[in-house]
Amino acid sequence: MSCIIDYPADSNFPIQNLPYGVFSTSQNSTLNDFMGLTPDYWKEGRTTLQTLLTAEDSPLLKIPNAIIKMRDATMHLPAQIGDYTDFYSSMNHAYNVGCMFRDPDNALLPNWKHLPVGYHGRASSVVVSGTPIVRPKGQVCPEGATSPEFRPSSLMDFELEMAFFVGGPPTKLGQRIGINEADKHIFGMVIMNDWSARDIQKWEYVPLGPFLSKSFGTTISPWVVTMDALAPFIVANAPQDPEPLPYLRHSDPFNFDINLSVSITPEKSGVKSTVCRSNFKYMYWTQKQQLTHHTIAGCNVNPGDLMASGTISGPDESSYGSMLELCWKGTKPVPLKDGSTRKFLQDGDEVTIEGFCLGEGYRVGFGECRGKLLPAISS
Amino acid sequence: MSCIIDYPADSNFPIQNLPYGVFSTSQNSTLNDFMGLTPDYWKEGRTTLQTLLTAEDSPLLKIPNAIIKMRDATMHLPAQIGDYTDFYSSMNHAYNVGCMFRDPDNALLPNWKHLPVGYHGRASSVVVSGTPIVRPKGQVCPEGATSPEFRPSSLMDFELEMAFFVGGPPTKLGQRIGINEADKHIFGMVIMNDWSARDIQKWEYVPLGPFLSKSFGTTISPWVVTMDALAPFIVANAPQDPEPLPYLRHSDPFNFDINLSVSITPEKSGVKSTVCRSNFKYMYWTQKQQLTHHTIAGCNVNPGDLMASGTISGPDESSYGSMLELCWKGTKPVPLKDGSTRKFLQDGDEVTIEGFCLGEGYRVGFGECRGKLLPAISS
Repeated sequence: MSCIIDYPADSNFPIQNLPYGVFSTSQNSTLNDFMGLTPDYWKEGRTTLQTLLTAEDSPLLKIPNAIIKMRDATMHLPAQIGDYTDFYSSMNHAYNVGCMFRDPDNALLPNWKHLPVGYHGRASSVVVSGTPIVRPKGQVCPEGATSPEFRPSSLMDFELEMAFFVGGPPTKLGQRIGINEADKHIFGMVIMNDWSARDIQKWEYVPLGPFLSKSFGTTISPWVVTMDALAPFIVANAPQDPEPLPYLRHSDPFNFDINLSVSITPEKSGVKSTVCRSNFKYMYWTQKQQLTHHTIAGCNVNPGDLMASGTISGPDESSYGSMLELCWKGTKPVPLKDGSTRKFLQDGDEVTIEGFCLGEGYRVGFGECRGKLLPAISS
Repeated sequence: MSCIIDYPADSNFPIQNLPYGVFSTSQNSTLNDFMGLTPDYWKEGRTTLQTLLTAEDSPLLKIPNAIIKMRDATMHLPAQIGDYTDFYSSMNHAYNVGCMFRDPDNALLPNWKHLPVGYHGRASSVVVSGTPIVRPKGQVCPEGATSPEFRPSSLMDFELEMAFFVGGPPTKLGQRIGINEADKHIFGMVIMNDWSARDIQKWEYVPLGPFLSKSFGTTISPWVVTMDALAPFIVANAPQDPEPLPYLRHSDPFNFDINLSVSITPEKSGVKSTVCRSNFKYMYWTQKQQLTHHTIAGCNVNPGDLMASGTISGPDESSYGSMLELCWKGTKPVPLKDGSTRKFLQDGDEVTIEGFCLGEGYRVGFGECRGKLLPAISS
């Protein structure tokens, strides 16, 4: 396919990708209505756009402002996010955290291999790539103390995640999405940085889970890459042992070979260092399993709901998806190219997560999920 | 004040109350815009309505359909709920649960008296009073087993809660609501039943908190009783020891004397039995403290966000706000008036939560928060 718009060979957004996003200055425009249609419509939209973009005498070339340069566009959140759910579906990540906070013999909790553990996140604080994040203040209980202090978090972290937007008509309360129809409700994917304040998290999260340690900001990339664009990059699912309960079983592959990387760019040096190279294919639970599980007790879902993977860590140390794991709880400082080191994030650090699939002669990319950590507010 | 509409002396909704709600058949109409104004506007709206409703020659009597009989109105959710947060702010409840699942000497976790513990709930499954709730199915791990089974929950419970709607203009990410301005962002209150599947909860909730055991349905009463209507019923705050950190301290009373009761009406007998009499005044953390804590790390809030108290239990056994506590984990069956007993809820049980404040010669009520438990779907 030859496109009417020129782009470099390594573009993230070739004709084979065609992601959806929202730009312009209108905050009210969202993709929710389009997401609320069915896959037939999504495919028709995609095919129509591909046809228009490859036609020799494309009418798009004659319509003023039909084509906007990316540098002229300010990107917005692609959808109004009704509810945001964060899963915990990378076994390497769950194992690493379990090793650090419990012990290697009991690293995975008893439920972990039986269901995709997840929790409700805060939808209001999901922001688009480029939005600065202020270092949060909160209650922190120093090691050995019995009372907390109020201060800025000193253990600021990123979490390398991906997320999918729910599509299809809203489901009703009590209605389940079966495992074999789950893909009809998965519209497309974005990259996510689930910023985390580890010290606030440690003190607050028992027994009801993370709260303010996450809800000060969650960054997503602006372009929603469709499942049709990702279809050529499907790979085998992770082996699951024990076999999950029947409602979670599916044999068709629904795992994706998506190269992921995380970089830190300190404000002072401006030098970008890649600190993690991972891949979405390391996920234990598939997105179909996540969505089916989410609805099995009757929870309804809406187009525009966001469901995230949890931190994606691979088997190697270089593929761990958080500073907590990369510096192994502060014991192994991570070297940066500018000569400095990091255990956790410092003020002025810009974190950039990138992701792409490599096709034959083209690349289906996600662009950037980027955010700079600003100092805590002094008051 | 004498109202142009006749109502009985024990009406929940006298001129002193004037709650806000949404009815008619239009699903799109919500109170979010009104909630998004400031307390001055809320007061002006209330005063104007009270004036119109007490004027001798009120123009309301001349406008067709200005006054609708309650029996002709179908109530809807009062707002589009952007995010729903559930706190855990009743000490008696947290203590009871701690006694049952840990031990009386360590019943309260170390953080409990330092911050209002809370977690993000599912907004999509909050429904208005009268909506039936289907018994959820899910993963349950029998005592002593190592693998879960998939089956209907057999430990279905209610949770007696109240909740407030956030008001005022949306706050920005990073913006905090100080303890002395928190009341400007509290629009009004409703009653809530936070339906819970205890067996699903027990298996799924470690380490990230409750998920599907709550998100199959959460019922609220339709009328939002304003803080102005509740002002005459303010009582002293609960003593807090240790004193909380400065950002959570306020000396003005912001606790409310609201009588609460829970009844169960089995489908077969139709006989309503009150199983719990509690009071909102038993709360340890105030709503001002909840809201201030929620934003302290920078989480933004929007008008229409819903923030719930957590189960409200009083000091006496008859004031425990859940079946889990009333039957003390199944050891003390609760007698009903029709001769049957309950440990947990049975199919066909209708749970009704009611609440009211007693003024001098009037009553400021909330009406009902009602829902019937339907059998699990067979497939």
